[in-house]
Amino acid sequence: MPNARTTRLRLALAQVNPTVGAIDGNVAIVRATARRAAEAGAQLVAFPEMMITGYPVEDLVFRESFVAASKAAVADLATQLAADGLGEIPVIVGYVDADGPARMSAEAMPDRGPRDALAVLHGGLVVATYFKHHLPNYGVFDEDRYFVPGDTLTVVRVGGVDVALTICEDMWQAGGPLTAAARAGVGLVVNINGSPYELNKDDIRLALVARRAAEAGATVAYVNMVGGQDELVFDGDSIIVAADGTVIARSPQFDEDLLVVDLDLPVASGPAVDDPSTGTDGMHIKRVPVSGELPTPDGPAADTTVASGSIAPRVTDEAEIWTALTLGLGDYVRKNGFKSVVIAISGGIDSAVVAAIAADAIGGSRVVGVSMPSAYSSEHSKDDAADLAKRTGLDYRVEPIAPVVDAFMNALHLTGLAAENLQARVRGVVLMGLSNQEGHLVLTTGNKSELAVGEAQRRGETPPIPENSISKPPSAELRPDQLDSDSLPDYDVLDPILVGYVDGDMSRDQLIAAGHDPEIVNRTLRMVDLAEYKRRQSAPGTKISIKAFGRDRRLPITNNWREHV
Amino acid sequence: MPNARTTRLRLALAQVNPTVGAIDGNVAIVRATARRAAEAGAQLVAFPEMMITGYPVEDLVFRESFVAASKAAVADLATQLAADGLGEIPVIVGYVDADGPARMSAEAMPDRGPRDALAVLHGGLVVATYFKHHLPNYGVFDEDRYFVPGDTLTVVRVGGVDVALTICEDMWQAGGPLTAAARAGVGLVVNINGSPYELNKDDIRLALVARRAAEAGATVAYVNMVGGQDELVFDGDSIIVAADGTVIARSPQFDEDLLVVDLDLPVASGPAVDDPSTGTDGMHIKRVPVSGELPTPDGPAADTTVASGSIAPRVTDEAEIWTALTLGLGDYVRKNGFKSVVIAISGGIDSAVVAAIAADAIGGSRVVGVSMPSAYSSEHSKDDAADLAKRTGLDYRVEPIAPVVDAFMNALHLTGLAAENLQARVRGVVLMGLSNQEGHLVLTTGNKSELAVGEAQRRGETPPIPENSISKPPSAELRPDQLDSDSLPDYDVLDPILVGYVDGDMSRDQLIAAGHDPEIVNRTLRMVDLAEYKRRQSAPGTKISIKAFGRDRRLPITNNWREHV
Repeated sequence: MPNARTTRLRLALAQVNPTVGAIDGNVAIVRATARRAAEAGAQLVAFPEMMITGYPVEDLVFRESFVAASKAAVADLATQLAADGLGEIPVIVGYVDADGPARMSAEAMPDRGPRDALAVLHGGLVVATYFKHHLPNYGVFDEDRYFVPGDTLTVVRVGGVDVALTICEDMWQAGGPLTAAARAGVGLVVNINGSPYELNKDDIRLALVARRAAEAGATVAYVNMVGGQDELVFDGDSIIVAADGTVIARSPQFDEDLLVVDLDLPVASGPAVDDPSTGTDGMHIKRVPVSGELPTPDGPAADTTVASGSIAPRVTDEAEIWTALTLGLGDYVRKNGFKSVVIAISGGIDSAVVAAIAADAIGGSRVVGVSMPSAYSSEHSKDDAADLAKRTGLDYRVEPIAPVVDAFMNALHLTGLAAENLQARVRGVVLMGLSNQEGHLVLTTGNKSELAVGEAQRRGETPPIPENSISKPPSAELRPDQLDSDSLPDYDVLDPILVGYVDGDMSRDQLIAAGHDPEIVNRTLRMVDLAEYKRRQSAPGTKISIKAFGRDRRLPITNNWREHV
Repeated sequence: MPNARTTRLRLALAQVNPTVGAIDGNVAIVRATARRAAEAGAQLVAFPEMMITGYPVEDLVFRESFVAASKAAVADLATQLAADGLGEIPVIVGYVDADGPARMSAEAMPDRGPRDALAVLHGGLVVATYFKHHLPNYGVFDEDRYFVPGDTLTVVRVGGVDVALTICEDMWQAGGPLTAAARAGVGLVVNINGSPYELNKDDIRLALVARRAAEAGATVAYVNMVGGQDELVFDGDSIIVAADGTVIARSPQFDEDLLVVDLDLPVASGPAVDDPSTGTDGMHIKRVPVSGELPTPDGPAADTTVASGSIAPRVTDEAEIWTALTLGLGDYVRKNGFKSVVIAISGGIDSAVVAAIAADAIGGSRVVGVSMPSAYSSEHSKDDAADLAKRTGLDYRVEPIAPVVDAFMNALHLTGLAAENLQARVRGVVLMGLSNQEGHLVLTTGNKSELAVGEAQRRGETPPIPENSISKPPSAELRPDQLDSDSLPDYDVLDPILVGYVDGDMSRDQLIAAGHDPEIVNRTLRMVDLAEYKRRQSAPGTKISIKAFGRDRRLPITNNWREHV
């Protein structure tokens, strides 16, 4: 509607950090944030997908009592907002709804089962709802397992503007709600999200929002949650993009934010009448009048600085990954009620990176670092461990393991790899004992990474990791003079093969065709197979789920299939 | 077609045990079994779903090289069967097909992506294919993640009879292929399966097959795989049911079988012409002529005893569970290439049950049983452990853990629960050390169960588990005079609450309303929460997947949701 009369709508996007299952706490976040939005003069406030329940709730949708608690919380929240004096501002929140039981067996998907839902709260009531249409069922998502798709686009008229309400995947897949929004001639599309971080997700997201804004012929306001939840990290990055692709405002990544923006939007004309027929997009359209055209806010709330929004700068890829790791760990610790973590400190690069992440996430004084030298540990390792502990401010302890290892060896007479692994297992028992005694979360150390180097440089501070730990050849020090390169190719040779094989689903032939040395490809693939065999041996029934580079892999335990890659 | 002329078709259902990924081995099973079927005079042979690849293949569908190997194996198999002199008998096998890449992101599901497919092999060629229409995505199934649904029912004319080809879930959900089969007026529906065991599945399955046979107005032949694969156990139980509900033949549970049956079926009339229009069932119909009406087989193959099939007797529920456990464990050991297992033997009921299962599955001589007495272990426990080892023929060893525990305690000064758990962890390290040194698979001991009692009685042999281990009060013996009942309600009180809470998704209120003592409900729910908290503490990032009574649970790690049950 290029020639339509426009009005100004002050929109607030609440980029907040809910916790799965913590319904009372999540409701409290909505009330406090809606108050701040009101103080900034907002006329419409949108919170993320599943705001009330947190995301992902997984099999909790099968618990009737949990779904009932979600629905009750939304109705109560409408009342509470009105009691808070916020009843005049329409508030959009995500929650789980259901009018009937979930499908749990071969029964056909019910018509009235669980919904990934959105509610508009106004005047003390739930005045409109919308049920997510496109359900993602790939990568980390399993929504076909949980939710019944909706088939009706809800358009609310707020401040005289027609606003289409959509949820997350509705925008990622073509057709459906966004196409129906174009058909409905809306002035604004609100899209609420629980969209997890992966590398470069911000670039992908911006291009997508711009494309959908063009298709819908309307401004799109995308609000995402932020924070770590179980295995996922949500990166925020809420965005508002005009139909012509202009980025109007953008929230930072990995931080909470309240993005308040004045939008000039077309005034809707004509009555808000439902369209119960189905378009070629497969959607019905339901229209709900909420509030008429409003005067532009005045007083302190009219401050154009507040309401102009801003475009938060992007950070480097290295900083993005580092922040995702520290936010994910920090929220895991906090949301699960831990006060501290415990970690083995070897003096090598792997444990140094994990310790630096932990210290950055929750503060070094809450990180117990335990050096557990054995008969094979070198003096430089002990020195580097102590150096790391000092740089990162760890609660540092030394627990020599030789007496325990000797006691085991007197009984079991292990040799070779079994004797080497014994030392690692004894260290694990020490950590679990300290965890049990003192309540720390146990962190395991991952693999070598160059992350910390870039991060230390970026911050311009004393690097947390000793130069020695970075530059010396990696060694597990489980036998005299052992180096990782005795059994592993160099990391710069190894890593691309692992990325291709594990993450890229490439075959042996494809890897060799891509230019990798055939002997090293064969040796690497054998090592991956062997590692998984050992894992099956000591953890039978454990699913092998490789989460590398943001992708989830679900592979059979039995590995004869490797003959065919 | 009540008045139609009938002909006799000798059908063979091959209830066999494929292995995921072992394509060459699975193809060899088909060739050997097809030969046996031919020797029994079969005119049509059906193998299970995903026969070529095994089931479930999970994220292997994303590996182009694996899907290509599956397709190539089917084409090669057709050639090989003809070379084996078996080209005249149509052979039905399940496999993975694809004409294009899988969906791995928010792209729309492709039209030509991976298929849960079926091929008919005849005369050295793949003469027909069918793609599964109903994809299960609940419980242990995630097929919406992997496969594109088919929308065309394939009807082959074999021996003058029209045979509709369907796969597993096609029969479990109403409408679709079975309704289209009725519309197509077929004489027989073949349904190939990878259908996992759960308690009483055989009764559910029989009722379902009978209902679908009535709806299709045709005999239904249901063939299932058998054997353990990763976390699943397939129970076989292949069935043939007439349209009037008569059970014509039935294979045993948990055993391989070749069910050969003469069926009197209506002769198809008219040309086999495709119906490209879509019925109200949403399916197109494609018809493929394969072979005309055949003379009834004679010679040894005409032996009516061979071809009358049989109805295998059902076993008791207790025997059914026991056999599922031994088959699942035995196949896990075999399919993953282990020769032996190692298990801690305490003299208590939990380890006794696991040892008896292991001895039954792979033979006592391949089960290493390790008694690891501590300072708190009673004489009767040591005696009961030795008695169990003798009864089950274990490779029995005694490894006192006191010296190792003392060495740990000298270093760490653990108290209370941390000191108790230390003993369990030291025992774990002993098992993992023996596993590393000697190559055994480590088995962990589950919870108390009455299974073994019923099993020992059924077999009429010396019970494998000492009476003492069954009758004495359970104790972890981690401190002096400790009994499980000090911290746990009696099992007959505890178990129904756990079944309701963990497996039944019941809330606290529902459990109390069902008559359970409120104090015990509260205590039990707290204990479940605590166990999961401890698990989060020592295994961060581990998904809590509770597989109780055949149902899979995927719950968030963060457990604030428990406030709302």
